[in-house]
Amino acid sequence: MENEILELIAEKKYSKLKQILSDMNPADIAVILEEAPQKELPVIFRILPKEPAAEVFVEMDSDAQQFLIEAFSDAELREVLDELFMDDTVDIIDEMPASVAKRILKQTDAETRRMINKLLAYPDDSAGSIMTTEYISLKRDMTVEEAFDRIRTVGFDAEMIYICYVTDRSRRLKGVVTVKDLLLSEKTAHLGDIMDENVIFARTLDDKEQVASQFEKYDLMSLPVVDTEDRLVGMVTVDDAIDVMQEEASEDIDKMAAILPTDEAYLKLSIFSTFKSRIPWLLLLMLTSTFTSAIIASFEHKLAGCIALVAFIPMLMGTAGNCGSQSSVTIIRALSLGDVEFRDIGRVILKELSVAFLCGLTLSVINFAKLFLIDHLILNAFDVGKALIESLVVCITLFFMVIVSKLVGSTLPIFAKKIGFDPAVMASPFITTVVDTISLVIYFGVATMLLSL
Amino acid sequence: MENEILELIAEKKYSKLKQILSDMNPADIAVILEEAPQKELPVIFRILPKEPAAEVFVEMDSDAQQFLIEAFSDAELREVLDELFMDDTVDIIDEMPASVAKRILKQTDAETRRMINKLLAYPDDSAGSIMTTEYISLKRDMTVEEAFDRIRTVGFDAEMIYICYVTDRSRRLKGVVTVKDLLLSEKTAHLGDIMDENVIFARTLDDKEQVASQFEKYDLMSLPVVDTEDRLVGMVTVDDAIDVMQEEASEDIDKMAAILPTDEAYLKLSIFSTFKSRIPWLLLLMLTSTFTSAIIASFEHKLAGCIALVAFIPMLMGTAGNCGSQSSVTIIRALSLGDVEFRDIGRVILKELSVAFLCGLTLSVINFAKLFLIDHLILNAFDVGKALIESLVVCITLFFMVIVSKLVGSTLPIFAKKIGFDPAVMASPFITTVVDTISLVIYFGVATMLLSL
Repeated sequence: MENEILELIAEKKYSKLKQILSDMNPADIAVILEEAPQKELPVIFRILPKEPAAEVFVEMDSDAQQFLIEAFSDAELREVLDELFMDDTVDIIDEMPASVAKRILKQTDAETRRMINKLLAYPDDSAGSIMTTEYISLKRDMTVEEAFDRIRTVGFDAEMIYICYVTDRSRRLKGVVTVKDLLLSEKTAHLGDIMDENVIFARTLDDKEQVASQFEKYDLMSLPVVDTEDRLVGMVTVDDAIDVMQEEASEDIDKMAAILPTDEAYLKLSIFSTFKSRIPWLLLLMLTSTFTSAIIASFEHKLAGCIALVAFIPMLMGTAGNCGSQSSVTIIRALSLGDVEFRDIGRVILKELSVAFLCGLTLSVINFAKLFLIDHLILNAFDVGKALIESLVVCITLFFMVIVSKLVGSTLPIFAKKIGFDPAVMASPFITTVVDTISLVIYFGVATMLLSL
Repeated sequence: MENEILELIAEKKYSKLKQILSDMNPADIAVILEEAPQKELPVIFRILPKEPAAEVFVEMDSDAQQFLIEAFSDAELREVLDELFMDDTVDIIDEMPASVAKRILKQTDAETRRMINKLLAYPDDSAGSIMTTEYISLKRDMTVEEAFDRIRTVGFDAEMIYICYVTDRSRRLKGVVTVKDLLLSEKTAHLGDIMDENVIFARTLDDKEQVASQFEKYDLMSLPVVDTEDRLVGMVTVDDAIDVMQEEASEDIDKMAAILPTDEAYLKLSIFSTFKSRIPWLLLLMLTSTFTSAIIASFEHKLAGCIALVAFIPMLMGTAGNCGSQSSVTIIRALSLGDVEFRDIGRVILKELSVAFLCGLTLSVINFAKLFLIDHLILNAFDVGKALIESLVVCITLFFMVIVSKLVGSTLPIFAKKIGFDPAVMASPFITTVVDTISLVIYFGVATMLLSL
């Protein structure tokens, strides 16, 4: 399919192309057009009917959008803009260079421009930044029939007509009524009698991640947004909430892997931007491992006497890192999903200690069996006494290290969140550095005692 | 609020309680009731009105559900079941022990039982397992007015009335018509003329993750599900799609942190289950680090001659691990979101090589400056020649190691997916082991050459 369309574009067979594209979903058309040569885009846009053309435009990446806007005549640009929902227009302007943004704003009427500028002013992570202003608001003294008339009049331009909000004279949010309620009620009933007054709502400056999680918790299709004076100013729809959830999950994953989060899809991000998102943590973590180097260096002369101990350093530090990141990643995700809060810290510690005890015991016993019984006795049984003590040093270290790693891994993110830090930043790599350092101290401490180095 | 309610429960002030609960959202009631003593639950349920009671029931965890079902009389159980949507009933039965499941099925009529058993038979990860059978289907020769009559008749029991599917005589899916379309059309228009024939649909056995991503891609509110003969058998709604997305993100995060994924929330999972989800990978990774131990052991006598090299092992392995997991985690997420596919492997390798070159160069240069200029010259400038070579060994290793780590980290998940493995399992810990081993080989190789050990 994709190749066929790209071929038609290359061969400029526009009437065949028009026929094929007219049966396709705009999101699919956008994916294919991103593979086409940019200079062909304006022509292809002109053969698409108005409405799907605007939808395809919204789905394209900002590079292609900019190219198209620059190629459009003023009339063409106005035509596309007329079809867009307000929140999409705002998102597009947000991504454009100033000159292009200015040209877009020039093609809109004064009222729309005022609204766009207001929406652009909301902080990037706020409910205001993801809301649309094209909702349907009704009055409580309307009848069901009047409500339907109103929906028929304004519904064509609204993004979501099934959930309508009831406001009073000063536009304050008073209730919610669904088209289902309206369909199942008498035509003469008043909205005040059938509306639900228990509306779940957000404020313009609420964190958008929190807003998205309300959709999940209450199974919502839309959520009204009010300003500081409780006046209805917008509505978040479920499709935008889904985008926020996926973005936030990607962001958490990035941070857990010591990457500075970026908005762009992997293949879209330039090499230098990718480099910039990765190098800060790599540098920081490399420099902080000076601690572990210093500990080993200070132990150098003792190690020279028992060089066999060196061979276990990677295994010990690897296991400590894995234990710590298991706990931290679990807790970070639980914090994100709202399953764990600060007041649960006692339960978390108790649980992690119990799990760590079980894990530590299992790992130590199996490692002892492997080291002493298999490696030493079977493979090279020369000095049984020394082998026994070496194996003991490794396994005792392993046990305590697992407990410390899980404790640090599970509590650091909770404390981070409490003091207003991002818990995800506390994840694997940072905790690994902390845990590596502690593990080496335990290792050399146990070795010094048992091997009397 | 929560404490007030728990107090009212403890003091058995049911009429006050009834009044407060009647104004609350069922999802919020469920969260609070999970904190209440289980034996109070049946009484509280009896004071709730029928409909919210059923919604609260659905939101509770399966322990509490089971307790309630066992406490209910047959009549009470039937009342709750009558209010439930089919897909929720199936989910609840799926979680119950056989005897409880049997009791639930006994309270449903024959037709419902047949349907439940059919839904229970779909594999856990299929579209069939998350679909509901309470959709609205219409015929193409119906008029808009007839469609509204039909929606009014069956709408009360349907989960989502705004998207209706048009089928032919053999129940084959032919089109989709929204309540918005119906509201904006003439009452006498025929559905065949206003319906959209380009329906995005899924098949019962399609992967539910794929189904969820269709919601994101096409901004859907619901998606019809057809059987192998193209007959409409169900519908997935956006709230269930959101649950799947969040579950899948949690699962990916678990796997990236070397944890076997579990369904339960962190605090709900028992200590032993948590242990079981964590120990397999810890054990496996501990045992595979035998490789690194073996490499170090084989190098032991040479290391004894230049023990200073040992101090850099943790830094080198840590950096390699971080580089590898940055790449692997990025690629795994991109694969999940559909941003990267196998055919992109050339572009991925080219990009990772470029980024690795930049990262490797930066890290090496900065590390060289730190090691040779600061640590050796300023802190203890005794043997300049030896310090220079040691710093060179570390930095050359660093450079090549970064390149190999990023290459392995980015390509392994893609190959894993290609051969049908789960790419997330290839993430951080597994790749760390591979990369650790390679790094040590590079380190000792470079050391042998430059230090002529």
